[in-house]
Parts: sequence; C-alpha cells; structure tokens
Amino acid sequence: MDDLIKHLFSPAFDNDLLAQLNDSTAIDLTDIFRSIPSNRLAFTTDSFVVSPLIFPGGNIGELAIYGTINDLAMSGAKPLFLSAGFILEEGLPMETLGLIVNSMATACKLSGVKIAAGDTKVVNRGHGDGLYINTTGIGIIPEGINISAKNALPGDAVIINGSVGDHGMAIMSVRSGLEFETTIKSDTAPLNSLVDSILAVTNEIHCLRDATRGGLAAVLNELATASRVGIEFDEKAVPILPEVNAACEMLGLDPFYIANEGKMIIVLPNNKADEVVSAMRKHPLGINSTIIGNVVENHPGLVTARTSIGGMRVVDLPAGELLPRIC
Amino acid sequence: MDDLIKHLFSPAFDNDLLAQLNDSTAIDLTDIFRSIPSNRLAFTTDSFVVSPLIFPGGNIGELAIYGTINDLAMSGAKPLFLSAGFILEEGLPMETLGLIVNSMATACKLSGVKIAAGDTKVVNRGHGDGLYINTTGIGIIPEGINISAKNALPGDAVIINGSVGDHGMAIMSVRSGLEFETTIKSDTAPLNSLVDSILAVTNEIHCLRDATRGGLAAVLNELATASRVGIEFDEKAVPILPEVNAACEMLGLDPFYIANEGKMIIVLPNNKADEVVSAMRKHPLGINSTIIGNVVENHPGLVTARTSIGGMRVVDLPAGELLPRIC
Repeated sequence: MDDLIKHLFSPAFDNDLLAQLNDSTAIDLTDIFRSIPSNRLAFTTDSFVVSPLIFPGGNIGELAIYGTINDLAMSGAKPLFLSAGFILEEGLPMETLGLIVNSMATACKLSGVKIAAGDTKVVNRGHGDGLYINTTGIGIIPEGINISAKNALPGDAVIINGSVGDHGMAIMSVRSGLEFETTIKSDTAPLNSLVDSILAVTNEIHCLRDATRGGLAAVLNELATASRVGIEFDEKAVPILPEVNAACEMLGLDPFYIANEGKMIIVLPNNKADEVVSAMRKHPLGINSTIIGNVVENHPGLVTARTSIGGMRVVDLPAGELLPRIC
Repeated sequence: MDDLIKHLFSPAFDNDLLAQLNDSTAIDLTDIFRSIPSNRLAFTTDSFVVSPLIFPGGNIGELAIYGTINDLAMSGAKPLFLSAGFILEEGLPMETLGLIVNSMATACKLSGVKIAAGDTKVVNRGHGDGLYINTTGIGIIPEGINISAKNALPGDAVIINGSVGDHGMAIMSVRSGLEFETTIKSDTAPLNSLVDSILAVTNEIHCLRDATRGGLAAVLNELATASRVGIEFDEKAVPILPEVNAACEMLGLDPFYIANEGKMIIVLPNNKADEVVSAMRKHPLGINSTIIGNVVENHPGLVTARTSIGGMRVVDLPAGELLPRIC
C-alpha cells in the first residue's frame, strides 16, 4: 500500500494539498472567495463500477473525474477539489491501474481540478471487479446563479449539446461483441468549461442536468417531475450518430434511454435560447448543440415526444435496469 | 433503485440539503462562517470494506460515519457534511441494508453531521462483498488551530484516550471463531466532541491522529517521520483490555499494531499535558486517557518502547498486511 502511494498515486496526483499528508486536508478558501465572490459550496459524490474498466473512448478513471466534475458543473459551480477513493481487487494488473491513475491525473489537469484527498483499500481476489472508484467533489457556486431541477417554467426552451447514447452503446458494443465499421466511442468529457461559456451569455439558466444513467428520457422526466411542468421534445431534433442508432436497433434499445457521459440538458427562457446555442456551438463539446423541445403547462410531470411520423407519444421513466454497470 | 432511495435512504437521512435533489448539493456557508470564524475547510475520504458487515460493537455503516468524522476532527475541524456512496452487491438482504443505513442515520444525529450527498450503485452477485461504503467529509477548521503530523517537537508529551486493539480484535475474534467470557467489542466512536474538550483547554495541540489501520505503532511512526523527531513510549502505560491481550496472545499478534476506531494520539507541549488529560477523563470517550510517552530529539524518525522488563526496543512500521479488511 505504501509503495502504491509512493510510486503511483503521489507522483500522478502530486499537489500542495495532498502533500499535507494529514488525516484530512486543509483547504484555504480566502483566495478562492476573492476571485469568485460566493458563499456557497457545491458538493457531490459518485461511485464508478463500470465494466470493462477500459473501453473505447475512455476508462473508469477518466469517467470518475469527469462524472463528478459534471455533477458540480450542473449546479453552475466551478469544480475545484475532488477526493478519490479506490477499491482495488487483489490481482489487478499494475499496468492497468497505472494507465487509469495517470489518465485521472491528466483529466484533472485538463479540467482545472485538484485531487485533495485519497484513500485506497484492497479486497480479496474475486470480490471487487478489478476496481471501483468513488470521486466526491467540491465546487464554488458563484453569486447570482440559481440552477435547480425545480426551476423549469412553461415557455422555456430545452437544449442538448450533441448526440445521445454514445457512452452506453460504446460499453454495450464491447460487451456484446458487436462490431461496426466505425467503433462507437464514449463521449466522456468535462462539461465545466462548456457551462462557463453558457453562463457567459446569461445567468438566467433554469436547469442543467447531465444525461447519464437513464439517458435523455430519465433527465427530462426528472425535470418535469421536480418542476411540475410538462416537457415536449421533437424526436427528429435529437442528434444520434448513425452507428449508435444501428447498435440500438440490433440490440432492441431506445437511444433516448441510453447513458451519456458528456451530454447535458439546458432549460432556459426561450428568448435566450438562440444566443446560448450559438455560444455553445463555438465550444468543442457543443458543436452539435441544438434546441430539442420546450417546457409546457400541460400534462405536468409528463414528457412527450413528437415522433418522426408526426404523432405524439409519452416518454416514460426507464423501467428496470437497462444497462447495468455502465458508469 | 428509485424504491431504495424513496423508502430507505431518503427517510433515514432526511434533511434540507438532500431534499434539493440536484446533481450536486448547494451548501450555504454564510451562517457557518458567522458561528465559526474560519476560512479553511477540512476534506477527507475513506472507503469501508470491512467483513463481516455487522460485528460486536458496531457495523460498517456506523464505522463509515465515525471514521470520516474522526479524520476531520484530527485536523481540529468541526465535522459538518458527509457524502455516502454505497456499492451494493445484488442479493444483499434488505434487512441488513436497513439496519446499516438506520445506524448511519443515528450516528449522524449523535455527532451533529448531515449526509449532504449520496450515491448508490448495484453490482452483480459475487462482485461486491455485500456492501462497500465510501464516506467523504467536509469540516471547518476554526481560526487559530494548526494541527499537523509535521508539528511534533522534542519535549512534547504523547497522550492516548484509552485502550488499544479493541476494534481489530473484535473483528479478528469473529473471523477466527475465538470465544471469550467477555465479547470483545469494537471501540468505534466519533471523536469530535472529545477533540472539542481538548481544544477548550488549549489551542496549542501539535498533532492529532486516530490510531486506525496499523494501530498505535503505525501512528507513532508516521508522526516521528513527518516531524523528524524520535518518539519514546512506555509499554506498560498503554491501556490494553485483558480480553484483547488474551486474544492477541492466542493469535500471535502485537496489540500495538492492531486497528482502533475510537482511539487517538495527542501530541502537545508537556506543560499542558496534565490539564488536557484531566479534561479528557471527564469525557465518556476519554475516561482512560493517559500520558504514554514523549517526543525526543534523539533518533529522528524512530519510535522506541520501554519494555516491561526495563529495556528499550524499536517499534517499527507494521510490515505486510496484518489485518485485511478490518475497516
């Protein structure tokens, strides 16, 4: 354990906070609150149990960093500090662990966060699926921002920043041995700088939510329920990659229910929607941003879709466990 | 999963922060910083993989709450907010999970912390040892407190708040089927209020560390290394329960290396030691507090013990994994 910390974790995550080597890390907020006027923390936790550990487009480590960064960013917070808790299964190849840890370190650097606390436990062979990672994050919510699943209002526009289903189908394709001409890659990415570019246009964002487990359908249902509004979207307006569509058809899955790890839903006043979409399209993670629907007063708590043949259908919460261990 | 959250986690951990139901929880610090002048957070993470999940004196849930509270308290912080990440193995009896979750809720209430963020993942049968729990904590370090493993000075006294080895031997006795007239119980307990009573005497505390994995020997070695000092202690001065001593003898283990979950080491200027011990003895978790040794200039990085027959021996860092999965 000491060796692991000295030779792998410490060099990878090296920073002044971890170097304190105390039971808990002291984080001085003076300079942070000087540069970001605020009195609010954002706090979130997520455990990652994805199998396989390494998949097209990413790995469990990168996913753990970006997943928690995104949960912080969805409240409009600047993500700053993460903890990383590793549960290693005895026998996990050091090479695999090294690759994962180093990609976590790179992910932190790219997105401006620091690992401020860590923990490692080892469990017996056959008891841990190779590796589980918990990341818990702290961010700062700047003054003047009030984003919540409860804030959607009738008349609001609903925006997405790109194609749905990529992450879930990347994992599922590997598991089912599906092969296509183009490999489906996970969309795992840190959304905090894209959120920055949205908030640079307007603070008047009502809801932000990343469309992870349960996909687009789950998020829209959660927002409709929490805000007691209806949501209508246009099936044809939702970007889907052809290879994702094909994989979904072969496996009998609905892409609206498939997990994403770099896609988010933005709900905001309709009169700001075009300007926000334009700003998002200038960001590498928002090139395919588009308005997919709107919030309505009718049928509160219910999500409906205009189908490609012009009808309307109810899009329910996903039932059962569609995709176990995709995140 | 929805059912679990609605019927088990939400009622147990019910509070205004969890009720936000957003991807991350917004925590307003205004009132907190008004009542505790401070500009520093304490941040710590720990994963718990103990087997068996329920043991004499406690269970994995209580342990997860108190373990993280203690890590915060060891920097002199007031523990305030915890996240709880559950990795459940399919097939874990709901009764067991209910007992554990409810005891976590009680542990939070008793020690004045709130669960502010949560996450649950389910892994396939045979992949998760029943239940793993990660808790990550945030506390506030009051102004004027500067506690660190690096701060021990020659001349300082070394105090412990009671008997060593109880937690580790409670677990080991169950695993090995050892039976004694008296059941050995884990000492799992929240140390934050005991730390409060120490800081009420003096802010001049140099080091605090709870003696978990690796026991008393590991902690003293860590402090000696981090502070570049020697530490000497008197074997006879360290309280050990007779049943713990007996169990250690039968299993060929050294009680100084056995994990504790409610014991801590305090290093402080010698002229404050008696007053602090007196204050600690008035606290239910410090009745058997006592001075066990002192910090010396000689042999920096080395811990030595005066043996019961009057000699001196070096007490090394524990080698290998003495007790897997005791926390």
